[in-house]
Formats: sequence, C-alpha cells, structure tokens
Amino acid sequence: PSHGARKMEDYGRFLALLVSALLVGFVSVIFSLVWVFHYREGLSWDGGLGEFNWHPVLVITGFVFIQGIALIVYRLPWTWKCSKLLMKFIHAGLNTIAMILAIVSMVAVFEYHNARNIPNMYSLHSWIGLTAVIFYSLQLFLGFAVFLLPFAPVPLRAALMPIHVYSGLTIFATVIATALMGITEKLLFSLKNPAYSALPPEATFVNCLGLLLVIFGALILWMASRPHWKRPLEENTKVLRPIGGTPEGTEAESTMTDGSNAEKSDLRISSEAARKQNLKLDEAGQRSTM
Amino acid sequence: PSHGARKMEDYGRFLALLVSALLVGFVSVIFSLVWVFHYREGLSWDGGLGEFNWHPVLVITGFVFIQGIALIVYRLPWTWKCSKLLMKFIHAGLNTIAMILAIVSMVAVFEYHNARNIPNMYSLHSWIGLTAVIFYSLQLFLGFAVFLLPFAPVPLRAALMPIHVYSGLTIFATVIATALMGITEKLLFSLKNPAYSALPPEATFVNCLGLLLVIFGALILWMASRPHWKRPLEENTKVLRPIGGTPEGTEAESTMTDGSNAEKSDLRISSEAARKQNLKLDEAGQRSTM
Repeated sequence: PSHGARKMEDYGRFLALLVSALLVGFVSVIFSLVWVFHYREGLSWDGGLGEFNWHPVLVITGFVFIQGIALIVYRLPWTWKCSKLLMKFIHAGLNTIAMILAIVSMVAVFEYHNARNIPNMYSLHSWIGLTAVIFYSLQLFLGFAVFLLPFAPVPLRAALMPIHVYSGLTIFATVIATALMGITEKLLFSLKNPAYSALPPEATFVNCLGLLLVIFGALILWMASRPHWKRPLEENTKVLRPIGGTPEGTEAESTMTDGSNAEKSDLRISSEAARKQNLKLDEAGQRSTM
Repeated sequence: PSHGARKMEDYGRFLALLVSALLVGFVSVIFSLVWVFHYREGLSWDGGLGEFNWHPVLVITGFVFIQGIALIVYRLPWTWKCSKLLMKFIHAGLNTIAMILAIVSMVAVFEYHNARNIPNMYSLHSWIGLTAVIFYSLQLFLGFAVFLLPFAPVPLRAALMPIHVYSGLTIFATVIATALMGITEKLLFSLKNPAYSALPPEATFVNCLGLLLVIFGALILWMASRPHWKRPLEENTKVLRPIGGTPEGTEAESTMTDGSNAEKSDLRISSEAARKQNLKLDEAGQRSTM
C-alpha cells in the first residue's frame, strides 16, 4: 500500500477508537444516571441520599469522561490546523471543568456524611480520592503556569513536559481505580436485602458500569500514548530542527511517549539570542507529547 | 556538565528510583504479612480464614511486586552485557511465577468461599480480578510464542511489541486497582466492632498498604516508560539502521514509549534474503520498548 493509503488507514483506526471511547464514556454517564434514578433515590441537594448520588454522577461525568477527553484533545486530526494556543485553552478548560465537578462531587459526600453523622475520610477510597483531587489541581495549576502563561523559559517547559504527561496519565488511571473502589463501597453499603453477594440486578448493572470505566480508561491511555497520533510540529519550528542528528543522541534525550524531536531541538539551542529570534519556537517547548 | 557526567547523573537517578521501588514493594509484602499475622488469623490451608489470608499475601507478593520487577528487568544497566535471550527468560520466568501465585491466590478464595457457602464471582473486584488473570495469562502465552520462540517473523514481532508493552502496563495498573478494591471489601467485611468507619489501627495500617501499592505502581510505570532508560540496541543491529532517515518518517512509525529506530529499521527491510543474512537482526524486532 502507498504511504497515503497507510495514512488513511491509520486515520480510520484513530477515528474508530475515538468513536469507541466516546461511546463507552457516554454510556458510562448514562449508566450512572440510570443507577441513581432507576435503582436509587435520584438527585437532590438536601443532605439526603439524593445529595450523595451527585457523587458518582459528577465523578463519572467530570473526573472520568471529561478528563479522558481532555487527555486526547491534541490528538484530534481536525484540530491540527487550529492554533496550539487555542488547543491549550481547550485542554486546560476541559480539565478545569473536570476539577470543578470533582470538587462539587466531594462536597456532596461531605454534606451527606455530616447531615447523617457518618465519619469522613476513613476509607482507602477517600484517602486516594482526595489525594487524586489534590494532585489533579496541582497539575492543572502547574500546567497553566508553565505551559500556558508566557513566562517559563523553553528548557523548563521541555524538562517538565514528560513529567506533565506522565502525571496526567497516572492521575487519570488513579481516578478510575478510585471510582472502582467507590462502586465497591456503595454496593456493599446499599444492597442489604438482597445483598451484593446475591447479585441482584442493580449489582450486575453497576458491576458493568465498573467494567465500562476500565474499558474507557484503557482506550484513552492507548490513544494518548501512540506517538504517531501526536499533533504534528508547526512548520516554522520544523525548520529549526537539526538535520540528520544521530539516532542515539535523540533517543537518549527523548521523552515518555515521544518519538519526535521537539523538545530535543530546543535543548540543543543554547544561544539565548537564537531563541529570541524565533518567537514561535516556544511552541516546540510547549508541545504536548500526548 | 559533560556528556559523561550527565550519563552518570542519570544512572544515579535510575538507581535511586529502583531502590525506592524495591523498598516500597518489599514493605508492601511485609505489610501484607503483618496484616495477616498480627491483625488477622495468620496463614493455613484448611478452608478457614487462614486460607483466605493467602489471597492478599500472594497477590501482593506475586501479582504486584514480582510482576512489577518483571516489567523493568530489561532496564537494569548491569544486565545490558547479558544476552537478550537470557533477559527474556528472566522476564518470562518472573511473569510465570507471578501468574502461578495469582492463580493459587484465587484458589485460596474459592476454597474458602466454598467451605463457608459464600457465593463466588459476584463482586466487581472478582470480575475485574479474574479478567486481569485471564489477560495476564494470554499476554504471557502470546509473548512466549511471539518473542521467545524463534518462529515469528520479524515484522510480526515489530508490530506486536507496542501492543505487548501497552497491555503489560495496563494489566499491571488494573491489578493494582483490583487490589485496592479487594482491600476495601476485606476491611468492610472484617472490621465490625469497631467498624471500618471508626478507623481502628488495622484500618489505618491497611489503608497505608493501599497507598504503598499505588506508589509502587507509579514508580514502576515511570521507570518502564522512560525511553532513555531502555536497554541499548546490540551493536550488530545498529549497523543495519538506515543512516539519516527523515525525522518525520521515523516519528510516524515509532511505537509507544519508543524513541529508538529498532522496529522501524526492521520494517524497512523488505527483502527476505536480507533478513536471513543476519540472524542477529531478529534481536531488533524482539527488543522490548519498556
């Protein structure tokens, strides 16, 4: 097959995975709503179980689904003609929405617990969940300060990008693990007669929701870690690349999921004057490796 | 700093992370033993709680700790002078031990459940856990057939390697998530007076075990996904690399955590005769990208 045909085939494969991820994510949100409205007490904000129920709905909608989309937003081929800055705003914006929903989902649980005199923060679910929210907020704050604001020098951006990518994917996986613990807790607490162990319809249904979350996470992590699905470099930064650099050298300096030379070419430009000559260069340092 | 000094610094960083991972993994195993012997009924094989207790001990020892070490065994710099085949045997051997321990740990739970007439396979923990063991066994079987046995052609090895790496890391993360669900279940079941929500010493202790498992997983995933910590290519395969290939071309074909050109150079050699001329070439196709 020709190079063009292989590229189209690869594009088709990306689209198939994207549609699968969107579908699985969307069905997960629907499942959380069916769980809450059909099997449980619905939604309210009165300190009762209806307030607690915001917790799974907001976590699955925001902290899982929206965060997952935020992780692959640079990979959508039809956004490659948009400016990198616009895409960064979308990436940061989606993550901000996810963070707000995650925080509101925690408030719902605390208020419910307090209204019923149930202790807070005793379970492993709560320990890891709160840790994930704190790290997620730090990641968002640091990402904003380093990659969106124009003050951080290019070498700092280049050095932090692999850590940013790794932290993002690890936090995302941890959030899904925490959701699975939450499902386990909630089914054990709420299913009494028949118990969880008798596998009533609600238990089967919510177990399936848990499986959907794992599949969603696996799809997002696959898409986010394929180097050939990365946003291509801007043309003007490409020109600055060293031509025919030794493969060993680039390998030694390359970043996590990074087959490109974006960060490396930055690192090679030691002259401050050369850096300033090309304002667009900092696009390379800011380039997401997801 | 000179190139040599930077390499030594990087080596020191790898060692620090390795020692941390070994320490956290080892302390996790100790924690599982303290949990079982100090807080619970110890170990036995009589259908009682002592038999159940093999489950957390064997999962944490085998399915978490030993699997984690198996994932980074190619990255240990002092093994780079050993033959690739030897390292593959060690990788496959450690994973085989982990699989056997995981299966025995499941047998312990089934026997315990059956002796007490507790239903099997109702919880999300059991669904995802069994799925993980099945995928892990498939991964081991496929890895053995494709990368260890000498029959698979190089292009097939090159095409499957990124999938092998991704599956390995995803299964590992899923196993840790499943362990966290298991801890949640066990603490809710076994802590009655005082309950889990009163956070008795056992609850705090086992929550800490859960945190250790997350830290261990994060350390292993970081070490396994840094491309500059990969085992270097064998000298004789390096010679076969195309010199000065366009960066775009190599980027488009590169694999998950792969900054090298190992798989790509294989793919470029279309002549069957050329492939057979160099028996050592298949090392490149087999090269782990972890």
